[in-house]
Parts: sequence; structure tokens; C-alpha cells
Amino acid sequence: MIIDCHGHYTTAPKALQDFRDAQLAAFKDASAPRASLKAISDEEIRATIEENQLKLQRERGADVTLFSPRASAMAHHQGDERVSQEWTRISNDLIKRVVDLYPQNFVGVCQLPQSPGVPIANSVAELERCVRELGFVGCNLNPDPSGGHWTAPPLTDKHWYPFFEKMADLDVPAMIHVSASCNPNFHATGAHYINADTTAFMQFIEGDLFKDFPTLRFVIPHGGGAVPYHWGRYRGLADMLKRPALKTHVMKNVFFDTCVYHQPGIDLLFEVIEIENILFGSEMVGAVRGIDPETGNYFDDTKRYIDALKIPDADKQLVFSGNARRVYPRLDAILKAQGR
Amino acid sequence: MIIDCHGHYTTAPKALQDFRDAQLAAFKDASAPRASLKAISDEEIRATIEENQLKLQRERGADVTLFSPRASAMAHHQGDERVSQEWTRISNDLIKRVVDLYPQNFVGVCQLPQSPGVPIANSVAELERCVRELGFVGCNLNPDPSGGHWTAPPLTDKHWYPFFEKMADLDVPAMIHVSASCNPNFHATGAHYINADTTAFMQFIEGDLFKDFPTLRFVIPHGGGAVPYHWGRYRGLADMLKRPALKTHVMKNVFFDTCVYHQPGIDLLFEVIEIENILFGSEMVGAVRGIDPETGNYFDDTKRYIDALKIPDADKQLVFSGNARRVYPRLDAILKAQGR
Repeated sequence: MIIDCHGHYTTAPKALQDFRDAQLAAFKDASAPRASLKAISDEEIRATIEENQLKLQRERGADVTLFSPRASAMAHHQGDERVSQEWTRISNDLIKRVVDLYPQNFVGVCQLPQSPGVPIANSVAELERCVRELGFVGCNLNPDPSGGHWTAPPLTDKHWYPFFEKMADLDVPAMIHVSASCNPNFHATGAHYINADTTAFMQFIEGDLFKDFPTLRFVIPHGGGAVPYHWGRYRGLADMLKRPALKTHVMKNVFFDTCVYHQPGIDLLFEVIEIENILFGSEMVGAVRGIDPETGNYFDDTKRYIDALKIPDADKQLVFSGNARRVYPRLDAILKAQGR
Repeated sequence: MIIDCHGHYTTAPKALQDFRDAQLAAFKDASAPRASLKAISDEEIRATIEENQLKLQRERGADVTLFSPRASAMAHHQGDERVSQEWTRISNDLIKRVVDLYPQNFVGVCQLPQSPGVPIANSVAELERCVRELGFVGCNLNPDPSGGHWTAPPLTDKHWYPFFEKMADLDVPAMIHVSASCNPNFHATGAHYINADTTAFMQFIEGDLFKDFPTLRFVIPHGGGAVPYHWGRYRGLADMLKRPALKTHVMKNVFFDTCVYHQPGIDLLFEVIEIENILFGSEMVGAVRGIDPETGNYFDDTKRYIDALKIPDADKQLVFSGNARRVYPRLDAILKAQGR
């Protein structure tokens, strides 16, 4: 069984973006008509999935994808709280329809309604709805709802605790995932995403979050940002800051995916990070869609890089499914109910 | 010959920090006395250098360090333009005294007087003074003088061009180096530094700066931030954004140092980045000062990691000195004048 922990519905039917455009237009101009989502047929959803994520799942040999709304489209910095709540609900409902059409292939992970300056407690209800009513198994938490201005407190601040309490209560992990950048310094997928991954990890080193929430679990995507490459720096900083060793202080609660788009990067990830902390992920169809001229394969076909590793089969099994089933217990329950 | 391209005077005599404290106090409270730097004797400077950087140079086997003021203390976000100008001048003058005391061991690189919202043209005079009058060979350019709020335009914006013109004119490179962070999200050395490195590189991919300035040269420190680890992502993004290949588009002008504090990170750096683009650096005495319990050696003793590489001696020679002499032609001239 091969579980891809990181997939977004980047190929959703056009009606979704039409709704978003109309919604933001109405936000900016009260005289514009209120947006409503045009009906999307099952056939439309099937077309967008079968030609893309499902096709690539089959071609590349994955079985299940943890599937969430397009990350860059969350755009929590646009509109206001009402806009974000509405957009989030619609985006999550569409994921639910994909899951219902392909229950063997996709399991839901939700976007959250966040807005700069709005208490994170206001995101709890949508998490609860997605987990309890829609059967989702995790969420994407944006540490910077401002879109590149970084105006929220660090993730270790009590600001976030009402949400973490609910995560612990529901026993669901969060992937830490920023969205589009409205700061011209930061290209979204080339700088903002990677910076956020690195930033979150360092916040966890500085703080004591996992003392307060020993069961809380975060997946840091994109191979943990810069962290594995600078693993010596982080071990050394933990020491200088008189924090406990990373293994006990952070790595019981933090996991990295394998969205690193070349063999040497994956080699490094597996060399420095414990096998229990690595979850297979590809982020397809996502940030980098082309073919690597050096290999002739898609950059984001990350399974190939793992297949090429000379590590025991038992370790590969952990990365491809065992770790995901442990980190996402509700995923494990769904798979077990399916006899898998 | 072994040239460390990245060293800061992190151990300066206490009088320097006393001045800074008084200067900032006077900025905040006009009734406070105007700050003045207490006399620092040559003996004091010798003590701080011989017990630290010079001792480590000798122990670790380096010959020359490109030496600049403490990066985290530049703090361009504090005070105003006048404060930054004064602080910068004093900091650079102290570097000059170190160089004059140890001309075989240290070559000067200057801090710049920057302030949020102040035109970069106002930094040109200090660069010119340091290069032409003090004999410095490069500068540290802060892409985010706001200290973690990222309010300046990207480095590829015409905002920066007056400074780049002077760099080209003087034929000096800049190390892209942020300073302290006043944004609680970003730990300075654990997040802000690494994020800035990654951010700058992605800006160069997006822009066309080196078409306008074909001879401009930047050193991105800390091993290029997250870039080598995500080299596939950056190659893929350049392709998706219809930019030329990185080799011609960016890597004729951009160089990475070796401030990566563990062997696997250095191994990756040398695997994916061309040897001509790597400059030996340690950032000692700097961000990470402890001993790695896994090796028994200092984290920042980066020479050991390079010594351990199985690469041709000619390649090591490029990394240890040849590349630095090419990227910093004024350094090469100084060394030649010394018969080295």
C-alpha cells in the first residue's frame, strides 16, 4: 500500500475559480452580485480527476492520496473572515465529493477558514465539521494567513492553542502549509512555502509546544524546507539555546514529507532524518509540473527517488504507508474499514 | 592557501556594544547624552581576535578570513538613517583596525548603512569609502532592512540598481546577508538567515538582473539556504516560469558558501552545485558555537567536511581559494601584493 500524504485539488472544475472570482469581486464592490457556485456535475469532477491525479496515481503506482484543496488558492489574506469561511466550506465540500466518487483513492484533508487577525478559535468548527461529518483525517494549517507578511504569532504562541486543543481532541494532525504570497519578495512555491517550513521547525525548537500537547502531530511539507540540509545547524542551535535534543524535543511530533524533487535531496533526507519521521508525498499535480531533462522523469514523481534508495524494504514500507497510518489514525481506520 | 569567505567580528570589544546601546538610547530619548565610542586599544583588539578567530584559524588551518562586522548587530531596523550611518561607519572602522593589525589573516568586508524606506543610493558612499579608502574587498547587503517584515522591493527591482552600479563599477561582490529579526516568527540564525538566502535565489530566478549587470556577483551564505536541497524544485521552477537554465541565468553570478554544519549537507552541496560556484566559509565565530556530539568536532569547523570529500585536489583548491580570488578580484590583488 502506497499512501501519498500530500495532494491538492489543483485541477478543480472551472466553476470553483469562477465562484472565487465572483466572491472576491463582490467583497470589493458591494454592488456586485453575491457569488454562488454553479452546479458541478459528477462527470466534471471525474474528468478533472481521472485525467490528472488518478491517472498519475496509477502510472506512478500510488494507492491513496490525502487530498486537500489547492494550497495556493486558500489565500487567507484575501477578503475577510466571512469570505474565508464561505470559500473554505465550498472548497472542502468539493474535496468530499472527490472522496465519495473515489473512496479507494482519495481521503480528505481540509483547508481551514483563517484570516489575518481573526482568532484561530473561529477555525475550530470547520475542522470539526470536516472530521466528524465529512470523514476527513487531517487539515492544512497556515502559519501566515497574511500571505507573506508574517503578522500572526509563532505557532508556539497560546494564540493557536484553542485549535491545537481541538486537533488533540479529534486526534488529527495538521500539515503546516502556507498559501499564496502577496509579498513581492516571496515567490509562493519557490520561497514562501520553503521558508514557512523552515520557520515552523525553528519555532518548535524555540518553544515548548509539545510539553503542553504531547500528542499533537505536524507534517512539515516539502521535505521539511531547509531543515534536513541544515540538520547540523538545527542540532547545534538546539544545543546553544539549551533546548533538549531534537529527537525528544521536536521529532516525536513532527514529520517531513518527501516533496523534494531530485535524488540527491531525497538521499540527504533519508540520511539525516529518522525513518519514522518521513512520510511519502509528491504534491502532485502541484508546484513543479515538468519533466527533469536530467532524468527524463517528472520532477514530482518522488516515488522513483525512494524506490532508488538502498534501504530495507521494511523502511520503505514505513515511509510509503506505515508512518502515514500512524500519524493519521483516522486514515488507518478508514483503510481498515475498507479491508486494507 | 585557504580563504574563509565568511567571518564576522562577533567578539568585538565591549566598548562597541556600549556605544551602540548608548546610541540607541539617545535615539529613543533626545535628553540622553549623545553616544561616543570609548577608545579601544590595539591590545584589546588583539585579545579579542587572538583568543577567537585567529586561534581558530590556526587550529583549523585557514590562512585568510574575509572579515566583516557582526551580521546580527547591523540591525538596520533600529534607529533611523543617521543612526545606521554612524553605527556602520564605526563598525567598519573597527574591522579596518583588525585588518591593519593582522594584514596576513584578515581582509575587510563592509557592513552597509541601510534603513527601511531609505534609498539604497544612500549606501553608496560608505561602500566607496570602505573599498577605496579602507581597502575592503566586498560588502554585506541586507535584502530586508526591516528585520523580518520584508518591506523592501525584491533584489531584482530597480530600487537596488544605484547600488549595483557602484558594485559593478568597483568590481566588488556582495554577500546577501540579513541581520537580526524583530519579527517573532523568525529566529535570526535559525530561520531568518536561511529564509533570506532561499528568497534571494528565487528572486534571481524570477528576474533578469544579470542581463542588466552581467558582471555582478553575489555570495549567498549558509550554503545557499534551502536551494541545494531543493535543486530539482528550482530547476523545475525555472523551466515552468520559462526562464533560462539556472546555469546561465543565475549561476554565472551567484555563489554559495560552505556554512553548512554537518557532513551530509556538505556532501549534497558538492553533489548538485558546480565546483566553481562554491566558496569555503565557516561563519566562525558565529551562529553555532558548540561541539557536535556525533563527531566531537565544532559544528562550524566546515573545513573538516570539505577535507573529507572524495573530490580532486584541484577542486578543493578552487573551493578553498581559487573561487574566492576570482569572485573577489580585490582580494586577489591584496594577496598578490603580499606575494601570495
